[in-house]
Amino acid sequence: MTIKKINHVAIAVKDIEAALDFWENKLGLKLDYIEEVPSEASRVAFIPIGDSLIELVQPTRDDTGMAAYLEKRGEGMHHLCVEVANIDETFNRLKEQGVRLINTEPQVLPGRKMAFIHPKAANGVLVELYELTDNK
Amino acid sequence: MTIKKINHVAIAVKDIEAALDFWENKLGLKLDYIEEVPSEASRVAFIPIGDSLIELVQPTRDDTGMAAYLEKRGEGMHHLCVEVANIDETFNRLKEQGVRLINTEPQVLPGRKMAFIHPKAANGVLVELYELTDNK
Repeated sequence: MTIKKINHVAIAVKDIEAALDFWENKLGLKLDYIEEVPSEASRVAFIPIGDSLIELVQPTRDDTGMAAYLEKRGEGMHHLCVEVANIDETFNRLKEQGVRLINTEPQVLPGRKMAFIHPKAANGVLVELYELTDNK
Repeated sequence: MTIKKINHVAIAVKDIEAALDFWENKLGLKLDYIEEVPSEASRVAFIPIGDSLIELVQPTRDDTGMAAYLEKRGEGMHHLCVEVANIDETFNRLKEQGVRLINTEPQVLPGRKMAFIHPKAANGVLVELYELTDNK
């Protein structure tokens, strides 16, 4: 199966610690860890839920896409990350089919490869494609 | 564990058949079935992904909350459904903690019980709680 699962649902938040009051203290999920991602000017809280994650993403600068999103639309679901077995195959197939993509090719990062499908191609949903490249 | 998984991510769409062109033909997921839900004036396409579902929800009347949402915000992710082991326990705990809820008590439907947490309590995310009541 090419598509494995929902890897995560990302939620744009203004303040991770404030947001954790709901997701942890109220709803009862458990934070795994918080990662600082200077390259994307953000902090991310990873919260396991079943076989997936909820990721709370907080911009750390005002000049990022995520900060602009928060300013315009407020807090809320930001993107849906779909984990695939082979991102190059999925990406090339989408490209050949004329699906509007944000990246020109999958980005290679430690432990994963990723690319975004444009929300105009996916019913307003920013879809992230993800392939885990460790432990294969 | 009280919280089991993401049961589904619901996406508000104007036309399910048009939307399936992306989710099925392009992305490669497989539609399970489409259900007409006259009580909620909607049609829902159930698309399995891993241990969860993507649900495409299309309003069938203009005077519904979903239709108003589409009119105001356009297509996109509408709610996040979290499956719990015991919805009464979760619901009562949230209520005692003063979390703003949309329902006054869980709704009992065939095969499931459900309730919504207000997006103002959950970082702009409309969170649906779900307990499956068949096969227990």
